[in-house]
Amino acid sequence: MKNNITTNIQGFIGCESSYEDANIVLFGAPFDGTVSYRPGTRFGPAEIRNQSFGIETFSPYQEKDLENSKVFDYGDLDFPMGNKEKVLEIIEDFTTKVVEDNKKPFMLGGEHLVTLGTVRALSKKYENLAVIQFDAHADLREDYLGEKLSHACVLKRCYDILSPNSIYQFGIRSMSIEEHIHSKHVYQERFSANTVSEIVEKLKYRPVYVTIDLDVLDPSVFPGTGTPEAGGLTYKELQEAMLKLRGLNIVGADINELSPHYDRTDVSTAVACKVLREMLLIVE
Amino acid sequence: MKNNITTNIQGFIGCESSYEDANIVLFGAPFDGTVSYRPGTRFGPAEIRNQSFGIETFSPYQEKDLENSKVFDYGDLDFPMGNKEKVLEIIEDFTTKVVEDNKKPFMLGGEHLVTLGTVRALSKKYENLAVIQFDAHADLREDYLGEKLSHACVLKRCYDILSPNSIYQFGIRSMSIEEHIHSKHVYQERFSANTVSEIVEKLKYRPVYVTIDLDVLDPSVFPGTGTPEAGGLTYKELQEAMLKLRGLNIVGADINELSPHYDRTDVSTAVACKVLREMLLIVE
Amino acid sequence: MKNNITTNIQGFIGCESSYEDANIVLFGAPFDGTVSYRPGTRFGPAEIRNQSFGIETFSPYQEKDLENSKVFDYGDLDFPMGNKEKVLEIIEDFTTKVVEDNKKPFMLGGEHLVTLGTVRALSKKYENLAVIQFDAHADLREDYLGEKLSHACVLKRCYDILSPNSIYQFGIRSMSIEEHIHSKHVYQERFSANTVSEIVEKLKYRPVYVTIDLDVLDPSVFPGTGTPEAGGLTYKELQEAMLKLRGLNIVGADINELSPHYDRTDVSTAVACKVLREMLLIVE
Amino acid sequence: MKNNITTNIQGFIGCESSYEDANIVLFGAPFDGTVSYRPGTRFGPAEIRNQSFGIETFSPYQEKDLENSKVFDYGDLDFPMGNKEKVLEIIEDFTTKVVEDNKKPFMLGGEHLVTLGTVRALSKKYENLAVIQFDAHADLREDYLGEKLSHACVLKRCYDILSPNSIYQFGIRSMSIEEHIHSKHVYQERFSANTVSEIVEKLKYRPVYVTIDLDVLDPSVFPGTGTPEAGGLTYKELQEAMLKLRGLNIVGADINELSPHYDRTDVSTAVACKVLREMLLIVE
Amino acid sequence: MKNNITTNIQGFIGCESSYEDANIVLFGAPFDGTVSYRPGTRFGPAEIRNQSFGIETFSPYQEKDLENSKVFDYGDLDFPMGNKEKVLEIIEDFTTKVVEDNKKPFMLGGEHLVTLGTVRALSKKYENLAVIQFDAHADLREDYLGEKLSHACVLKRCYDILSPNSIYQFGIRSMSIEEHIHSKHVYQERFSANTVSEIVEKLKYRPVYVTIDLDVLDPSVFPGTGTPEAGGLTYKELQEAMLKLRGLNIVGADINELSPHYDRTDVSTAVACKVLREMLLIVE
Amino acid sequence: MKNNITTNIQGFIGCESSYEDANIVLFGAPFDGTVSYRPGTRFGPAEIRNQSFGIETFSPYQEKDLENSKVFDYGDLDFPMGNKEKVLEIIEDFTTKVVEDNKKPFMLGGEHLVTLGTVRALSKKYENLAVIQFDAHADLREDYLGEKLSHACVLKRCYDILSPNSIYQFGIRSMSIEEHIHSKHVYQERFSANTVSEIVEKLKYRPVYVTIDLDVLDPSVFPGTGTPEAGGLTYKELQEAMLKLRGLNIVGADINELSPHYDRTDVSTAVACKVLREMLLIVE
Repeated sequence: MKNNITTNIQGFIGCESSYEDANIVLFGAPFDGTVSYRPGTRFGPAEIRNQSFGIETFSPYQEKDLENSKVFDYGDLDFPMGNKEKVLEIIEDFTTKVVEDNKKPFMLGGEHLVTLGTVRALSKKYENLAVIQFDAHADLREDYLGEKLSHACVLKRCYDILSPNSIYQFGIRSMSIEEHIHSKHVYQERFSANTVSEIVEKLKYRPVYVTIDLDVLDPSVFPGTGTPEAGGLTYKELQEAMLKLRGLNIVGADINELSPHYDRTDVSTAVACKVLREMLLIVE
Repeated sequence: MKNNITTNIQGFIGCESSYEDANIVLFGAPFDGTVSYRPGTRFGPAEIRNQSFGIETFSPYQEKDLENSKVFDYGDLDFPMGNKEKVLEIIEDFTTKVVEDNKKPFMLGGEHLVTLGTVRALSKKYENLAVIQFDAHADLREDYLGEKLSHACVLKRCYDILSPNSIYQFGIRSMSIEEHIHSKHVYQERFSANTVSEIVEKLKYRPVYVTIDLDVLDPSVFPGTGTPEAGGLTYKELQEAMLKLRGLNIVGADINELSPHYDRTDVSTAVACKVLREMLLIVE
Repeated sequence: MKNNITTNIQGFIGCESSYEDANIVLFGAPFDGTVSYRPGTRFGPAEIRNQSFGIETFSPYQEKDLENSKVFDYGDLDFPMGNKEKVLEIIEDFTTKVVEDNKKPFMLGGEHLVTLGTVRALSKKYENLAVIQFDAHADLREDYLGEKLSHACVLKRCYDILSPNSIYQFGIRSMSIEEHIHSKHVYQERFSANTVSEIVEKLKYRPVYVTIDLDVLDPSVFPGTGTPEAGGLTYKELQEAMLKLRGLNIVGADINELSPHYDRTDVSTAVACKVLREMLLIVE
Repeated sequence: MKNNITTNIQGFIGCESSYEDANIVLFGAPFDGTVSYRPGTRFGPAEIRNQSFGIETFSPYQEKDLENSKVFDYGDLDFPMGNKEKVLEIIEDFTTKVVEDNKKPFMLGGEHLVTLGTVRALSKKYENLAVIQFDAHADLREDYLGEKLSHACVLKRCYDILSPNSIYQFGIRSMSIEEHIHSKHVYQERFSANTVSEIVEKLKYRPVYVTIDLDVLDPSVFPGTGTPEAGGLTYKELQEAMLKLRGLNIVGADINELSPHYDRTDVSTAVACKVLREMLLIVE
Repeated sequence: MKNNITTNIQGFIGCESSYEDANIVLFGAPFDGTVSYRPGTRFGPAEIRNQSFGIETFSPYQEKDLENSKVFDYGDLDFPMGNKEKVLEIIEDFTTKVVEDNKKPFMLGGEHLVTLGTVRALSKKYENLAVIQFDAHADLREDYLGEKLSHACVLKRCYDILSPNSIYQFGIRSMSIEEHIHSKHVYQERFSANTVSEIVEKLKYRPVYVTIDLDVLDPSVFPGTGTPEAGGLTYKELQEAMLKLRGLNIVGADINELSPHYDRTDVSTAVACKVLREMLLIVE
Repeated sequence: MKNNITTNIQGFIGCESSYEDANIVLFGAPFDGTVSYRPGTRFGPAEIRNQSFGIETFSPYQEKDLENSKVFDYGDLDFPMGNKEKVLEIIEDFTTKVVEDNKKPFMLGGEHLVTLGTVRALSKKYENLAVIQFDAHADLREDYLGEKLSHACVLKRCYDILSPNSIYQFGIRSMSIEEHIHSKHVYQERFSANTVSEIVEKLKYRPVYVTIDLDVLDPSVFPGTGTPEAGGLTYKELQEAMLKLRGLNIVGADINELSPHYDRTDVSTAVACKVLREMLLIVE
């Protein structure tokens, strides 16, 4: 029996590093824009941690083991629910600290809006930051019912602060007519992710942020999300696309939009865990 | 085959009156404070309408039939999601119109905040309006994480606009320590609803608004709600309490906080339908 | 506040036309052959309407917006449950009226038997009517346990009233040995829908009715149906097949066999909504 | 290893008797009035058998063990689905055979209509047969949408063939206005089952059939049924009522209306198993 | 932004004390006797922590706030799954350490067998230890299918190591005939918990361990457990019984048998959280 | 009415042969290594039998009908739960009896460990037995947390008793680093099953046992299993692979790891039924 009893509440499987030793800092951003208990993506990060021991730490795709990576799992950021600006500020500050300590941030959403916090922090350090996005939805609205800080606008907000030709979207298959017109200003592959290699080739000298809205997957694979959209990627297609990212200088990443309560088979959460393991081994 | 084809999308069972002929105007307030599709009480009113043909129109408790009442089902109000003030204004305006036309408003939430809209409208007409509330939660916070317009504060907001001694709470069993202290200023029966008769006696010469947060029921009876709180009323206890209200001058009412997706047996929705039938026959 | 309050119970998203202005009349046929409340496809049309605001009105596949189409959503037909002949008669009469008014009928089932009602009406006007069917099941039994009006026999009944070479089936993967033998008399592509273009070419001068039994989709994509049958189409395959129908003279269509209670993730309903949007834009 | 391998597919726990040795013959009547696969009470009997090993064979209420009873579990009757008259005939014939062999029939529904089959058979032998019914619904309609053989009419059909003063209903809490009027002709305790002892006293010299529609229980206890009706008995109330039946000459019994798919916690099925164990020990 | 980033993975709401300052040490024993991922009570402690922010820290029953208590939440013990003896040893060692440090252990199961570990540790320090048990099942088998260390035997194992007259059972309503006979050796109130006050009076000078198998609650209240048994306590009855324990010298406690996956409304977990809050405020 | 009433509890659809006449003996091995009621694969065989009447007996893939095959469904073996060695012995003895009677064993798991029982029996008769395995997991651990008889080790245990070059694995996509190294000793196609034809060609003169762990399917197709692993086969891919096995001398087979409670759409069970029908027609 050890003498000093300290907490043993567990993080994501295989992420046993201390903050000091870590290369990657994993953290949750359990924001879903609602002021009350229960619905939604707020529960995503905790469920991913809880169910992570259903997967192996070894990846047969990459022949690497997460136990050999240096990942620190911080747990979740504390948010004043109902205050979007403050939430984004907390994410930005935390990310800035991680980056200053020469570590890579890896965020677990929450709704897609949280990506704006990390992108703001990283774009200060990396002037030429590019964003690769996997998503069913373009998220390019100028505003959503008058609100500029919405998950439906998040990539438009990133677009506003990044240099031109910095947004690369894959798997997009839902948008309003306004977004359809806006989409001329970004790189957008609709319905699939076949051109990832070309874009990786193009971006290989730039710092890259990768944001995976898990609803890029077909709802048959990933029903546990707020706005399921038929016609998405199979898991194999997403796995293949992720492996192609290995040539990049990835400086940060996130996975978002798991709403675990909507899929009570827990398969969606298991899928999120596997995507996270693979991405951690790629970003590393 | 009729010559003029008009819509046949159905409302609540047995509510076949036109607006002109109606004594009661039933309407949905599908607001749950979120800006995106799916979670929550937003779906409550529609599910209640849809599943209403699972119950009879006749009440053996009151030996009355809803088909003999004059209820118009308007459907749902249209809301600009994400703008609480505007939502409350729309509810208030609609209720004012209904009241001016000498009809009684009966609202289906949505989250409990919507009650503020009807109470605002009714308190303009009825100076001495009293509110009878069935609820698990006191909803008496001054603010919730800085927000004054929250379902957790709604009765405090009503308190602010009504005359003293106008709030009567039953079944309350969850609160913060702040609300515990505030609760001195209202009538509050905790854990049960045994004193309804006494309060009805006391209020019989005043206009009364009845608001039923369905989470006053025990979660075994009504799991389909955002914040289930054990130790609530059985259905029989609520039925008995409702029947005692028959001596009152009820000028408006609402039923709220059904979140149908959380109870996939649909029993919660069936319970809501029965509570609605009974209340319509009481308010009538 | 408008002066005349009329119902605001909502139909399918983007279908705001009046009957008079409409090109397409959408209506529900909530029949599932049972005499009691609850199970089944009876709830399909209402759930499709309810959940339709989870999708966009714009189709990036066709680059068209449903808001520019002229669709009237009638709601559901009223049926005397338990009387199949009468149900079919009501469907036939309603369809006849729609056709006489020079509008196209688009029906939401309900079980597949309802297709017989629309086909009866349309075959009176269009002598040379052809039927394109997407389905897992051949539905070609002469009778099912002695019953000739059954969802398992519906295409055999259509066959009986149409001219030869008028039934074209895709995606079929389940049948009895009797149906296996009967299938020689119709066009039947088993297990896939690769030959749609050829058939469209062949039928381009004939009036065509399209009936989509959603169980043509793989149960991974569409579990919310009464008789899930593995080995079906992916959503992308069905989408691609639908787009090929654009060259046809489609005079009517239906989507059927959504049984929403069996898939509590609601993904099946979301899929049905998307198929409906795409088909409305194609039929238009 | 035994030499002759015979089937080992299991029946209800503790019901190991052969037909020859049995006092009670348990059998399933998996009819739910639909012609197609899946929904409903059709699956009730099989699920009760499957899940029966989750309960003990010993009853602490009666201090008796089912393993000491002589019950033969026949399995389910084979029905030509879609033919109500034939289904009732098969039940009647099977029951007649059981009764002729001096054994007591115990039927597992299926929808409540199946009770008519056993009552027909028993009323031939027992001229003065009385029926005790536990139910949420009166089931006293003359017809339901024109159909006389419906679960909503089954007690009216029993009434038609029994002598006057032979129907005793408990727990009734839902009816049409027509049934409300009809209910004058039978004994009906509404909303509870407090007068069972009095009725047992009255019937102690008559042969009695007991039919338990499990929806007599509150939906909180038993959500797994087609038409949940709030305000029912707790399990303890039903248990107490059943124990009072021990003074009677029970000549047959049934339990019906479990629709296992609607309650995926499987608690409803566990409740049905316990009710069955208790009733088998009472009927014995 | 703080300089030293340490983990922020959260424990049970309001349990913010360090180990050093704590009076109570809360810890999880996520054992369910299976060697593979997924089913069961293994997930109980983590879900209780996760969902604890759905309740308030203030108890209106006791008018006390958990934020004023000194509770340290350790998280879960690490177990070599599949080795019962070792699991029990780890629990015993941890509990011994806690007790030596003059703190009270409060364990979250896991299956009921884990109680043996804490009772072993406490019985070493407290010679005259008594156990109060709330449970549906007697758990008094000598062995279960040959296995002496089983959840079905755990109170018999406690009985073996405690002095006579040390086991007090409430709410018991399921047992084998063997346990029925064994139950003569312990205090056992069947079907209810009405005699708690008498026993509390009797035990007020003895150190007491309280073990709550949550299946003592009726399955309507608590379906999320492996062996639901109808006829249990309502939440109010359990709450009332717990409040009566306040006169005792409670030296340790546990709550067990939440199997969160079986109740996807999450009500069972919410109930467990409330029982835990109440018990922590009582044990304190 | 027949004179001798014998049990009518039903087996798998279309398997009506007596033991004496049968070519194939189907039997359940409802073992999931747990000592208590409820979780897991224990319920797999019973659910497959129950839900089998949702599929047709005719296979359009093979143009054969199960009703023409000679399959006897024994039901489930009786196991002393909690004693792995004894369970394997019972399976081995039963299989030996079946083989001695010149019939082919077809087992329904249960967890994958049960395969060791049939392989032990068959390897005694067939010296040169080869095993073809479809699985997500290699199951090649030497031990799992110290336990050598675990589902995670079952193929390693088969390996130990078979001659070299006798294990052929398809679809494998999850393993520990230890198993990654062990996998050099067996034939292993990762992530897909494209090389089945080559292996069939190679094994055509050897007796072959086929074991299908249904988690080889993608979780979108088959969520009802204990350890879902993304990136698996579609149903069509598995169907195609199975059809290629028709050239082999298959002397026994099993299907395992259906855990029906995790997929409450029942699609997983429907998939298992279809795989079983196809395999029975192949093994025949």
